[in-house]
Amino acid sequence: MIGFRGVSVAFVAIAGALALPPSLSAQTADYDATAKAQAAANSKPGDRHAPARDIATPTGDVSPQEQAIIARPYFPFFNAHPKNPGEWKELVARLADMGAKQIPALAEKLHVTVTPTVIAGVKCYIVEPKDMPARNRNRLLVHVHGGGYVLGPGLSATREAILLAGFGGFKIISIDYRMPPDFPYPAAMDDAMAVWKIAVTMADPKNMAIFGTSTGGGMTLAMVLRAKDEHLPLPAAIAPGTPWSDLTDTGDSYKTNEWVDNILVTWNGWLGDAAKLYAGRHDLKEPYLSPIYGDFHGFPPAILTTGTRDLFLSNTVRTHRKLRRAGVEADLNVYEGQSHAEYYVDPDAPETKEAMTDIANFFDKHLGK
Amino acid sequence: MIGFRGVSVAFVAIAGALALPPSLSAQTADYDATAKAQAAANSKPGDRHAPARDIATPTGDVSPQEQAIIARPYFPFFNAHPKNPGEWKELVARLADMGAKQIPALAEKLHVTVTPTVIAGVKCYIVEPKDMPARNRNRLLVHVHGGGYVLGPGLSATREAILLAGFGGFKIISIDYRMPPDFPYPAAMDDAMAVWKIAVTMADPKNMAIFGTSTGGGMTLAMVLRAKDEHLPLPAAIAPGTPWSDLTDTGDSYKTNEWVDNILVTWNGWLGDAAKLYAGRHDLKEPYLSPIYGDFHGFPPAILTTGTRDLFLSNTVRTHRKLRRAGVEADLNVYEGQSHAEYYVDPDAPETKEAMTDIANFFDKHLGK
Repeated sequence: MIGFRGVSVAFVAIAGALALPPSLSAQTADYDATAKAQAAANSKPGDRHAPARDIATPTGDVSPQEQAIIARPYFPFFNAHPKNPGEWKELVARLADMGAKQIPALAEKLHVTVTPTVIAGVKCYIVEPKDMPARNRNRLLVHVHGGGYVLGPGLSATREAILLAGFGGFKIISIDYRMPPDFPYPAAMDDAMAVWKIAVTMADPKNMAIFGTSTGGGMTLAMVLRAKDEHLPLPAAIAPGTPWSDLTDTGDSYKTNEWVDNILVTWNGWLGDAAKLYAGRHDLKEPYLSPIYGDFHGFPPAILTTGTRDLFLSNTVRTHRKLRRAGVEADLNVYEGQSHAEYYVDPDAPETKEAMTDIANFFDKHLGK
Repeated sequence: MIGFRGVSVAFVAIAGALALPPSLSAQTADYDATAKAQAAANSKPGDRHAPARDIATPTGDVSPQEQAIIARPYFPFFNAHPKNPGEWKELVARLADMGAKQIPALAEKLHVTVTPTVIAGVKCYIVEPKDMPARNRNRLLVHVHGGGYVLGPGLSATREAILLAGFGGFKIISIDYRMPPDFPYPAAMDDAMAVWKIAVTMADPKNMAIFGTSTGGGMTLAMVLRAKDEHLPLPAAIAPGTPWSDLTDTGDSYKTNEWVDNILVTWNGWLGDAAKLYAGRHDLKEPYLSPIYGDFHGFPPAILTTGTRDLFLSNTVRTHRKLRRAGVEADLNVYEGQSHAEYYVDPDAPETKEAMTDIANFFDKHLGK
């Protein structure tokens, strides 16, 4: 007979008799009690019951810079629930100001210029390296920023574009699309598609890619869906980073990584409110809002990026598998310990350079010259 | 001023006044209390503090068959701590008998034959499809089974080999390597390498691959490390499925997915004991035991598979990134909601066929004919 519970109890008893350090006996007794309670709580098919836990910052194969990001406290506004358009605008402005302040130094550090412009009546930024590599002279990328369709207007939107322009040497149009509360769906998508229609006249679509993270990842997918539907040229590759591909709270990591992800923290904070604010009267499952419900057949090759603690881990892996099931080349990258979109926080973290270089190499492989 | 906490409180108060359904008010009040407590517990840099949670079985993009697997109770022996070799052998035998009983029907269903043999003095099984596809006639795979270096001897070891022979049409040598308690490290690796040395005389190594899941994934990586060191031919591709690449409890998902994964459940159950039993006096971080600490330069292309709830999610993604950092082509696949190695449990689950077909296609791409 295997005493698979009795052994630990015996060990605790022995530990007490031998006067082992209190911390060790306590730890063992704690573990034993937890294991017993957990076994009882998970002895039948159905929901998983997980206990409260303290989770240390991972160290294996994680740079010190990234460890510092993973160890940060929760994003202070995760549970903001603005009551009206005025409160939304106040939150948006405050965060946009914080983000925009970092942009000049970031652009300088990465030898990138950021130039405001207007394309098809839509505010955009041209983000490009000061020294353009020869291989990229005829290439053009289009960037759609993140922020839950509400946050991140203006200069604050250009962060990821600057990183990819800097580490990858690409010229990029970053779209400062309209957002709620003033402009709910489909304004953002209309703006993005209006720019896309012009962008494909500025370069050969075979030399072009679309990319973005979070909401920008969802929009990247939705833009391809809409370009297919409207018989527009498709990009030669896409990089939907941890895409908000499902605006409903469907997806296992919305639960398994709830309260673990230190950026988004929970769907039930500002995020879920933002989904409804953006969608207005539209069903959250419409494919231009939640592209996971769209048809991925005929999509260009895609590179996806996420982290093990990301609230959108499931959004990302569901998108990856759905692309593969549709016969699309799709390359998944998951970073150890990272929460939502932490692969582009610190330009000095090796993981940031790695993620951007992987995307750049993927584009280099799939784009014409 | 953004009242990002006050809003929910106000809503609960209003809900009470309007006599909303009790479930809704209760849920909102519960959420609000949790959010408040969590914000306080995670307001400083450092460890993440996660609350107890009930996590529903995911439904989006998960087949009904796989949902049933995800919803299963904990593996009953997860917290077994055999006290001596006799107790280990009893546990091993009991589980091996359970596993072996399923093999004849599985082989029949997938039109595969399983033939015991001995290669280089090591017990093996030849697993092959009854109808060999022409493209695979000159190809040969080598399989190393899982089970924590202790479980899964004999016929029970052949499960994954049968699935890949059936869904991929390959001839496979499945190695029934020696294991503790009688034969700790390096017996398993010595057996695997002895078979590999003969196997590369049975087919052109350019037409060969090594694969395995969990411990078999770790051994797959360790075999390539050792083949490099011993100047033996390398396989043309490998498929380390959710590899036990780090036998120490290093890796974020050992903590984030502890008590969430319904197969391994926790490193502190039988798993950690098995690591020490196998390693004996050796350091768990020796690269032939924990290949994540080895040098992956020069490795053949690799396809990796895991799930979002897998205790070895971090083992898998750390291995993926480390391969990529070494310039190796590496393809990562993460299945929604799956715990450890649940991609090869039910031969009728679409995800099982999908995972095996992905591996087969990857081998077809990289192996000579």
